Amino acid sequence: MLAPLPDRVDVVVVGAGFAGLATAAACRAAGASVAVLEARDRVGGRVWSRDVGAARLDLGGQWIGPGQHRLEALTRRLGVATFPTYATGAKLLDDGRRTRRYKGTIPSLGPLELIETHLALRRLDRMMAKVSARDPASSPDAAALDAMTVADYARRLRSRRARGLFDVALGAIFGAEAAEMSLLWFLAYLRAGGGLMALSEIEGGAQERRFVGGAQGVADRWAAELGDAIVLGAPVRRVVWRDGEVVVHGERGAIAARRVVIAVPPPLAARIELDPAGPARRDQLVQRAAMGAIVKVIVAYERPFWRERELSGEVVSLGGPASVVFDNCSHDLRQPALLAFVQAEAARRWTAAPDDAGPVLDQLARYFGDEARRPVTIATADWAAEPWSRGCPVAVMAPRALTSTGTTLREPVGPIHFAGTETAVEWTGYIEGALESGERAAREVIRAL
Amino acid sequence: MLAPLPDRVDVVVVGAGFAGLATAAACRAAGASVAVLEARDRVGGRVWSRDVGAARLDLGGQWIGPGQHRLEALTRRLGVATFPTYATGAKLLDDGRRTRRYKGTIPSLGPLELIETHLALRRLDRMMAKVSARDPASSPDAAALDAMTVADYARRLRSRRARGLFDVALGAIFGAEAAEMSLLWFLAYLRAGGGLMALSEIEGGAQERRFVGGAQGVADRWAAELGDAIVLGAPVRRVVWRDGEVVVHGERGAIAARRVVIAVPPPLAARIELDPAGPARRDQLVQRAAMGAIVKVIVAYERPFWRERELSGEVVSLGGPASVVFDNCSHDLRQPALLAFVQAEAARRWTAAPDDAGPVLDQLARYFGDEARRPVTIATADWAAEPWSRGCPVAVMAPRALTSTGTTLREPVGPIHFAGTETAVEWTGYIEGALESGERAAREVIRAL
Repeated sequence: MLAPLPDRVDVVVVGAGFAGLATAAACRAAGASVAVLEARDRVGGRVWSRDVGAARLDLGGQWIGPGQHRLEALTRRLGVATFPTYATGAKLLDDGRRTRRYKGTIPSLGPLELIETHLALRRLDRMMAKVSARDPASSPDAAALDAMTVADYARRLRSRRARGLFDVALGAIFGAEAAEMSLLWFLAYLRAGGGLMALSEIEGGAQERRFVGGAQGVADRWAAELGDAIVLGAPVRRVVWRDGEVVVHGERGAIAARRVVIAVPPPLAARIELDPAGPARRDQLVQRAAMGAIVKVIVAYERPFWRERELSGEVVSLGGPASVVFDNCSHDLRQPALLAFVQAEAARRWTAAPDDAGPVLDQLARYFGDEARRPVTIATADWAAEPWSRGCPVAVMAPRALTSTGTTLREPVGPIHFAGTETAVEWTGYIEGALESGERAAREVIRAL
Repeated sequence: MLAPLPDRVDVVVVGAGFAGLATAAACRAAGASVAVLEARDRVGGRVWSRDVGAARLDLGGQWIGPGQHRLEALTRRLGVATFPTYATGAKLLDDGRRTRRYKGTIPSLGPLELIETHLALRRLDRMMAKVSARDPASSPDAAALDAMTVADYARRLRSRRARGLFDVALGAIFGAEAAEMSLLWFLAYLRAGGGLMALSEIEGGAQERRFVGGAQGVADRWAAELGDAIVLGAPVRRVVWRDGEVVVHGERGAIAARRVVIAVPPPLAARIELDPAGPARRDQLVQRAAMGAIVKVIVAYERPFWRERELSGEVVSLGGPASVVFDNCSHDLRQPALLAFVQAEAARRWTAAPDDAGPVLDQLARYFGDEARRPVTIATADWAAEPWSRGCPVAVMAPRALTSTGTTLREPVGPIHFAGTETAVEWTGYIEGALESGERAAREVIRAL
């Protein structure tokens, strides 16, 4: 992979996550020459599969759900099989005081809490329906909604458990808290993905199916098609741009191009120096995008003992340290595993101490019995500590970012274009959004070449 | 200034604003060898004086007020004179419908509005008194206050004009809106500077006096003392750190050092690559710091015609585009001038079109008569467009940044220390805070050498 860089291509793509791969594939299909510069020694970005015990499991994005047509078609074309996320048996709700079993979508709340939760969800759906995913700033009352945080909305929920469930859902979806997010941005995000329930659910939702052999297999096979257009270990630090010409400088040297597509999360895109500097409005906007934080803990076991107790493995915990737990066995059960998400504040305070997983194991033992304390192996990914992601799953937008800057994350700067799931208008924050954004960026570039 | 860099010094300081200069001066006074790498071709950072017509006037920070002891002593030692900000005559309040004259501190509101404003200020003072400027996260109810924005507080103000005045004050102090700022952070900021009225006022407040010949004169004389320790035109891009050794890489080459002090605003500090990467908690924190936006427009005239009308030149406008206007004549009146602040959203949407100042001139003509349309010259600084500041006057902290990350902007990363007014615990956001932060960073470094 240490072949010399080409001197010149039509399009340089920065980042070989799904957005960068989609950009590169579409540019190449249109006849353009492409180089993809990737900082890591692997493709996939926030999708990352690793051997954990006897199987390759996902330490990053790992699900595909209904309505994610691009990802579905890609997966099929590349011959990667999918299988349903395990959802047989009862789920658990740990409200911080006691743990109860439940079935169905919403945990076993009291009747008033249930009514309140349903009303809140319906109200969110109504608010969401008025917001444009493509151009949230053009929505009715955009400035006022953007001056509120999701916490301002959530304060209407009076039941402690209903609020707690909402917070856990936000932590799982964003790695961030209600107070950090613009309400307008949140509604646009829900709109782009079909609503809060669709984003939260396994069956019929964004967590419906998994990839046999890990989601990175899709990226790996796709990258193989792009061959030596992909350059690994090549962080980009600086883009010098003039009319109709860019020079992209990084660890592996410089490449001249007619266009560049920056396909990394907005806070990292902000760290690539543009010369001349980008416009004030874009800089002010990206300064207001911050990555969520999630630590993904995969705990591999000899046996899927929770299944034997007629538990699905799914837990929602208001106590923590893990807020959400899923069954994460390999498709063939060769490697039984649970997956625990440590989210937002708990993830930010996570340290690299080797016994960090201890409290998570204690927590799993409370839900599933003592066998949970005896894993075969544990694999963790602290995404906020990853230099080339600095958070996961997605960048959230602070209040007033969208409406006070008069621009969007996808507005080009001269010959510099932007992709990445944060720039998507469909399934923002998901692999599907990354694909959509890459296709869109490639269309912009091809039109301009 | 293109002398070769030294190979090695005890301390590299990144940035020659007041924080960097204070760090360098204190390190040198303690016997350490120092190099200050400054991206711009001048020192001073967010303080920047330029010839405007017949005088050198300030396009950046320009005031000194009571209680700013470090800046006062420094100014006296370096022999830079100060003079009172002009505050003789009536002020104007433009409420977006009509413009009225007033005297005193709070504009001529109706009696109920006045009561509301006074109550709100007293309540803020009481809240502020409970918050620690040094460690806001340790204050009572810190997490809850940090989960609120200042807009959540301001919603209690029912009068349109009282709210408008509050918003204008925030825009002038932060270049940002109530909705963008953590309430906890805001209270700590007020605490560090002595309260909202002290920050807003001329007489007895942070705008009390100006510098003869411009505030940059202080930085220039100080830099002259540091001599060739200061290297201009030397942006720093990367800091490689190991135990007890750092190598600072930038435009002008590399320097090895035992310690480095990064003395630039947090969003720009985030853009300097650390190798190995900094800890997750710091990265999550700085991702949640965003610069305010202010365009400073100095309009120079033949005569100070507003003074002839017994107007002080001070205007508070709820209409805009400029939200605040001050008299900004040179101390000797050789160059009469007004100063208009375009703030927050209006500043972010400011473009570089040459006739941008037109609406500001129209606005000044409404307040001061047609003579305001005939300036001698206009000088503007769009601070968000400045590559090495990317906003002004200060970085504001988003909700939950301070309390969810378990760190502070001044916690060192190995041998890498942080200065800059945002890291100050006294007069955060002011020149005085920059000095305090530099002294503190130098103490850390000297202790460690």
